[in-house]
Amino acid sequence: MKFEVTILGSSSATPIFNRNPTAQALNVNERLYLIDCGEGTQQQMLRFDVKASRIDHIFISHLHGDHYLGLIGLLSSLNLNGRTKALYLFCPPQLKDIIELNFQYSESHINYPIEYVFTDPSAPAVLLDNQDVIVESIPLSHRIACTGFIFKEKKRLRKLIKEKVEQLNIPVEYYSKLKKGENYTDLKGKTYYNQELTTDSDRPRSYAYCSDTIYNESYFEQIAGTDMLYHEATFLHNMLNRAKETFHTTALQAGEVAQKVNAQKLIIGHFSARYKTLNELLDEARTAFPETDLAIEGKTFGI
Amino acid sequence: MKFEVTILGSSSATPIFNRNPTAQALNVNERLYLIDCGEGTQQQMLRFDVKASRIDHIFISHLHGDHYLGLIGLLSSLNLNGRTKALYLFCPPQLKDIIELNFQYSESHINYPIEYVFTDPSAPAVLLDNQDVIVESIPLSHRIACTGFIFKEKKRLRKLIKEKVEQLNIPVEYYSKLKKGENYTDLKGKTYYNQELTTDSDRPRSYAYCSDTIYNESYFEQIAGTDMLYHEATFLHNMLNRAKETFHTTALQAGEVAQKVNAQKLIIGHFSARYKTLNELLDEARTAFPETDLAIEGKTFGI
Repeated sequence: MKFEVTILGSSSATPIFNRNPTAQALNVNERLYLIDCGEGTQQQMLRFDVKASRIDHIFISHLHGDHYLGLIGLLSSLNLNGRTKALYLFCPPQLKDIIELNFQYSESHINYPIEYVFTDPSAPAVLLDNQDVIVESIPLSHRIACTGFIFKEKKRLRKLIKEKVEQLNIPVEYYSKLKKGENYTDLKGKTYYNQELTTDSDRPRSYAYCSDTIYNESYFEQIAGTDMLYHEATFLHNMLNRAKETFHTTALQAGEVAQKVNAQKLIIGHFSARYKTLNELLDEARTAFPETDLAIEGKTFGI
Repeated sequence: MKFEVTILGSSSATPIFNRNPTAQALNVNERLYLIDCGEGTQQQMLRFDVKASRIDHIFISHLHGDHYLGLIGLLSSLNLNGRTKALYLFCPPQLKDIIELNFQYSESHINYPIEYVFTDPSAPAVLLDNQDVIVESIPLSHRIACTGFIFKEKKRLRKLIKEKVEQLNIPVEYYSKLKKGENYTDLKGKTYYNQELTTDSDRPRSYAYCSDTIYNESYFEQIAGTDMLYHEATFLHNMLNRAKETFHTTALQAGEVAQKVNAQKLIIGHFSARYKTLNELLDEARTAFPETDLAIEGKTFGI
């Protein structure tokens, strides 16, 4: 099953040429989940061939502009392009007021339902549970209410051992039961245990998205063992004081988070505009966690 | 005196790769006036080296997203970059609510005053009168309240005829009076008429910005004889019905406006995303008004 994330924006609030504020498109089994939507996200989607029409779920971490100011334009464009199916929006409750005020004053009639699911940073909560993923909010510690998100792949059905199943002439109608773990008893009354007929499906993967937050161990347990951790790394560690003041994380700290939660891989992003090149941030994070990559815009990471 | 406009965005609402929603930077005597501020305007300013810190006046024509959705981000960035001097915002009154709601929820404290001047599409009004320009609103006919803007250069002081002034040994302290049109009487009581000592300054120029509007002659008188007319031309004339339905103008009509108001030059923009190339729009407008150019992003037009 496809499970990969495409970086659409990698910068923090102050604009910098050729880097865009935060946005990511997560592809889970060919359905797109948009995570944050900074200004210019639509242009980035056009640039990297991410089809807006394939998005049914949008997750907004918090109401700093670099994480949501591209949303009104995107919602309007979906409408102009004839969308009628519902769009699910996971966000702080105040975003609904902002969206409705914009649409009221622009006299826009949105021809598809927007279904809001409000986030609450006081405790982790399951926000979405569909056939492919469970999504939980991750309470983060930022200047304003902010949640990350962890996307946990659903455990897939067991896989048939094709040769065995065919050799025993098991009727096709029975396959779905086998995949669910049932044993099989043939016409002569002989029982075959499920383990002989199927193999376990792959271990479900997870993707944890943590932006923006001060270094804070409170959410480590929730993201323990994640396959891929995206973590903000706004500053180099020589700006730790500035990071603390602004409730952000340094590259070194992001590496330490990945190491402590035993992640398989780390992607760092949300870079301050003061860093024209990003190698120093990467090198610093790798001192704590070698399996680190940069959130380069347009890059897709398989999870 | 510098009087030129740089195109930052040229597209209408539906996004298209590599064209951005409407924004223009007008440079009058090295002060920048931003006209409309679609999503991504900040990136465009970085791209074309238009310094945000030099903007003191922003004009928003109306509250469709492709004309203002870049504003909140720009206002935030000015704050992050330490601005303290006042910013003047000429806009529909509802924009104040939108801005304040965003800043309230993002808990942003803006450290410079935003001075609002509200537009009213019911009649033309002088919005700004400073040493360089007078700016008037132009009532337009769009789906929602919308005004264009005409920037009229102030008449400059008369220019000294340097040789003559030096030959007569007129004291330097007297120069400003001469520039204002006064005569000069020397110590012997002889009077020199101002016309002998100065020449008239250049004819004041004007720039008229008309977006978005249905073809409507009601504003023609106000923009008559303008040196440069920017006019929206969303569609080709074979889509006249669509233009009427959506309260937009065709390229042919834009050319006709320029011809009827006796403009010196026409710039067309606000192109529909359906036009991947723009030559047909240009050719069509030129059939009515040969002195037409396209609003190509990054291009600067001297007025």
